[in-house]
Amino acid sequence: MTRRLPRLALTPGEPAGVGPELVAELAAGDIAADLVAIADPALLYAAAAARGLALTIREYDGAPLAERAPGELRCIPVATAHPVVPGTLDRANAGYVLDTLARAADGCLAGEFDAIVTGPVHKGIINDAGVPFSGHTEFFAARAGSDVVMMLATPSLRVALATTHLPLRAVADAITREGLVRTLAIVHADLVDKFGIDEPRIAVCGLNPHAGEGGHLGSEEIETIKPALDALRAEGMRLIGPLPADTAFVPEQLERCDAVLAMYHDQGLPVLKAQGFGSAVNVTLGLPFIRTSVDHGTALDLAGKGTADAASLVAAARMALRLASLKR
Amino acid sequence: MTRRLPRLALTPGEPAGVGPELVAELAAGDIAADLVAIADPALLYAAAAARGLALTIREYDGAPLAERAPGELRCIPVATAHPVVPGTLDRANAGYVLDTLARAADGCLAGEFDAIVTGPVHKGIINDAGVPFSGHTEFFAARAGSDVVMMLATPSLRVALATTHLPLRAVADAITREGLVRTLAIVHADLVDKFGIDEPRIAVCGLNPHAGEGGHLGSEEIETIKPALDALRAEGMRLIGPLPADTAFVPEQLERCDAVLAMYHDQGLPVLKAQGFGSAVNVTLGLPFIRTSVDHGTALDLAGKGTADAASLVAAARMALRLASLKR
Repeated sequence: MTRRLPRLALTPGEPAGVGPELVAELAAGDIAADLVAIADPALLYAAAAARGLALTIREYDGAPLAERAPGELRCIPVATAHPVVPGTLDRANAGYVLDTLARAADGCLAGEFDAIVTGPVHKGIINDAGVPFSGHTEFFAARAGSDVVMMLATPSLRVALATTHLPLRAVADAITREGLVRTLAIVHADLVDKFGIDEPRIAVCGLNPHAGEGGHLGSEEIETIKPALDALRAEGMRLIGPLPADTAFVPEQLERCDAVLAMYHDQGLPVLKAQGFGSAVNVTLGLPFIRTSVDHGTALDLAGKGTADAASLVAAARMALRLASLKR
Repeated sequence: MTRRLPRLALTPGEPAGVGPELVAELAAGDIAADLVAIADPALLYAAAAARGLALTIREYDGAPLAERAPGELRCIPVATAHPVVPGTLDRANAGYVLDTLARAADGCLAGEFDAIVTGPVHKGIINDAGVPFSGHTEFFAARAGSDVVMMLATPSLRVALATTHLPLRAVADAITREGLVRTLAIVHADLVDKFGIDEPRIAVCGLNPHAGEGGHLGSEEIETIKPALDALRAEGMRLIGPLPADTAFVPEQLERCDAVLAMYHDQGLPVLKAQGFGSAVNVTLGLPFIRTSVDHGTALDLAGKGTADAASLVAAARMALRLASLKR
């Protein structure tokens, strides 16, 4: 039987950011994957040159790949509209970015790729180009017709978010019983299906400090969160909480669970980033395919200098491979 | 010259909680301090017995103490109104708790003690007794006539809070330019005066995720936080931020600052507790005296069993001693 390497669709994201050179760096390593970049090949060659890397790009033809030597990369060519100047955003290339994401998603939906690994995009320039776009996660959710949940993961901690990029004053009203039930169902299903955990235990944070302290510091735990958890417990889900956020992440508590659901961005991610910066990976739960991402932005100030750290993209690719191997 | 041990006023807090036995455990150790418990001596003897500790209690007479043998403790006797049953709250003893705090504060204000170290109180039972009481911090602030700031500290991280025990939905409106200026002035002054740091650098978190992302995720950074920081920078204060909370606590960033100001409880304390549980100490900034505290509650379920962990009270006492030695 011929060996077939798992196939990762790589989207470098914003062409003027560090994404292209991080993809070149990933390809220069020995990761055991069929790496298929969806990008402008000229951009990848320039990015490799900026880092002093030798890259061999072949056009992707759909055939399985049994071996990949370091520096080898296949490519589905998508041309940028304008030549790219590292560090300088150009709204004319916004369509290019979206085309690469669409091709990756459609390939995953068709079973052509085992996972998508994304570099950083720049939301502002896409919006400036007149395209409503609030991020990769929402783009893939719409393309796949799925409800999704954002999770950040390091080797030792998984944090899913009940709400993501909202102003703090909008968070409390965005937490609803139905939303939590939907979110926890997705987290539970993907811990089983994508992470291979049979009966996952999920710790759930309260919304308020001290998880509301019995109603003295807010009523959402009593009125919204606990009823949602109780309904899911009745269906057999193993849930802990609502817990005060400042006890949810202590080592003794983390040992008892497979993931933590934080109610909002800054309740959960500071802990994870403090512990795992550089190794944190963004995983989109709820999609009918595996999608991992870097946990950083376009770093326009570093683009083209050849010094940007590829650790997060490498971690994202490794996690995509691991999830692909576990997928049920 | 006669050696004089630094004198710590110890308030065990809620008599039915674990506080009394933690004080007994602290006294049983070899900490080099003149320990003066403000409490009912019978309660302390019973608590020591529950842990199998030999305790020698002498009535405090105001004389300096040059040596303290392990197990020795001085006491300013305050009688409980009712006999204490460990684990069972009794509103009749609420006045006792407040009397011990008042004595400790007044002694500190008079220069009799070098610091106050507090065990856990139970706010609910004091309120049930008809006394408005929202915590030690507020009690001492009122007694001393000071504006105060709550800080949690471990050996490697100091986190001050711009707001403390508020429902999440009340946080955004509680962040004001004037409030931030007042808070940062207190944090700065106490880092100099109590922590002995000459030109402290304070990192300040934004309110919103990604510190508002240039106004896309909330406007408070632009309208409130940045103007407050700029005004203080103009006076020479060394401030970093407003920073996204998920980058404020990464190791590279923490190396650049002496303390972090979080905008609210669950933005800053989960990181600190995850890293330093057991060694975290609550320090009240802004008081004209040093006050440290355990970072946990009354643990009524453990009271009288002799198993409660005294690490946080011991850490609080050690930090009080260190601050007393640094005080300018």
